[in-house]
Amino acid sequence: MENELKTLTDAVNQFTEERDWDQFHNPKDLAIAISLEAAELLEVFLWKKPEEAKVEKIKEELADVINYALLLASKYDFDIYQIVMEKLRRNAEKYPVEKAKGSAKKYNEL
Amino acid sequence: MENELKTLTDAVNQFTEERDWDQFHNPKDLAIAISLEAAELLEVFLWKKPEEAKVEKIKEELADVINYALLLASKYDFDIYQIVMEKLRRNAEKYPVEKAKGSAKKYNEL
Amino acid sequence: MENELKTLTDAVNQFTEERDWDQFHNPKDLAIAISLEAAELLEVFLWKKPEEAKVEKIKEELADVINYALLLASKYDFDIYQIVMEKLRRNAEKYPVEKAKGSAKKYNEL
Amino acid sequence: MENELKTLTDAVNQFTEERDWDQFHNPKDLAIAISLEAAELLEVFLWKKPEEAKVEKIKEELADVINYALLLASKYDFDIYQIVMEKLRRNAEKYPVEKAKGSAKKYNEL
Repeated sequence: MENELKTLTDAVNQFTEERDWDQFHNPKDLAIAISLEAAELLEVFLWKKPEEAKVEKIKEELADVINYALLLASKYDFDIYQIVMEKLRRNAEKYPVEKAKGSAKKYNEL
Repeated sequence: MENELKTLTDAVNQFTEERDWDQFHNPKDLAIAISLEAAELLEVFLWKKPEEAKVEKIKEELADVINYALLLASKYDFDIYQIVMEKLRRNAEKYPVEKAKGSAKKYNEL
Repeated sequence: MENELKTLTDAVNQFTEERDWDQFHNPKDLAIAISLEAAELLEVFLWKKPEEAKVEKIKEELADVINYALLLASKYDFDIYQIVMEKLRRNAEKYPVEKAKGSAKKYNEL
Repeated sequence: MENELKTLTDAVNQFTEERDWDQFHNPKDLAIAISLEAAELLEVFLWKKPEEAKVEKIKEELADVINYALLLASKYDFDIYQIVMEKLRRNAEKYPVEKAKGSAKKYNEL
């Protein structure tokens, strides 16, 4: 499909506009919302082994995280494809393969 | 661009494989990682008005959230385009325009 | 020791006042701060088995969570001893021993 | 009251033991639980001005955060009074009054 990210962004923005919710969506509260949805996603795993978590629930909660991530990106006109690729380039510098391979350490501890 | 989400997913997976990090990436820890990156994003706004937060920092932290969201989706072979669209359909049922318009209430309080 | 919670609360409030930080400490940002400190605590466990996490780091991050919890409680003049005991009573109703024993389910699934 | 923190800790531990929940309470999941309760506390403020949040709800959610903080402290035999006082001493070094007064900057930016 062409322009998947634009199509998704348009869809979440239309959903927001139809409900007149843009008045609530300042970037700070959108960042709070992303954090709350991430917590709901994490709750699916609470007290459980990873493989015991319900996949259907993970799917829904992850969709909510991405939904708000799209809304926040849209506020700043970020191009998600670009910012993820750019961040991978930066991470590649912080975590060079020869140092980071097989290690779970943070870059400042490598 | 064609298949943006697949291209991004392939890129984050390749980054992970090159560093042999897949051993750490069970779904529960990935969900924790999403939550921690969401917290770093939120920290950019701490003690600040929304417009005072540094846009460059928001961009980087939001990219990290999406990065881990892509990795988790990939673990379960979720199609992000599909799950976001499906969630919007469900949300449209929970928040019908005529009830939800202009209201910040949760669906169970509408 | 007498009045441990009052002594701690006075200490964190004095720390804040000496630095003139009360201007930043509205309840919403304090709630964000608690959430961010909880994330830093959780980060100590990321990619690790529970027993691999560094105890010294857990101690510090947990102290930060409690520090902000005391500040938020103080904003509303909550008596921490009372509100925790009161919450235990409510939880005892939501999770009666005979139903909840040995189960990790939420009260609405019991 | 004497030994408030010990009394509270005993109460939350007794609550746990009566329900045979100790089997779920490894430190990593307790840290997740603190983070989730902090998110529920933060949700009370979502899309709202600080003064619009419901105080009764804040009280309950804050109690939940402290509840799990007591359980985690108890796992490691931390003395909460000591670790908070010790952290204040460390923070006083990171944020000396003459540098930090009136500033919301992090210690590494002061």
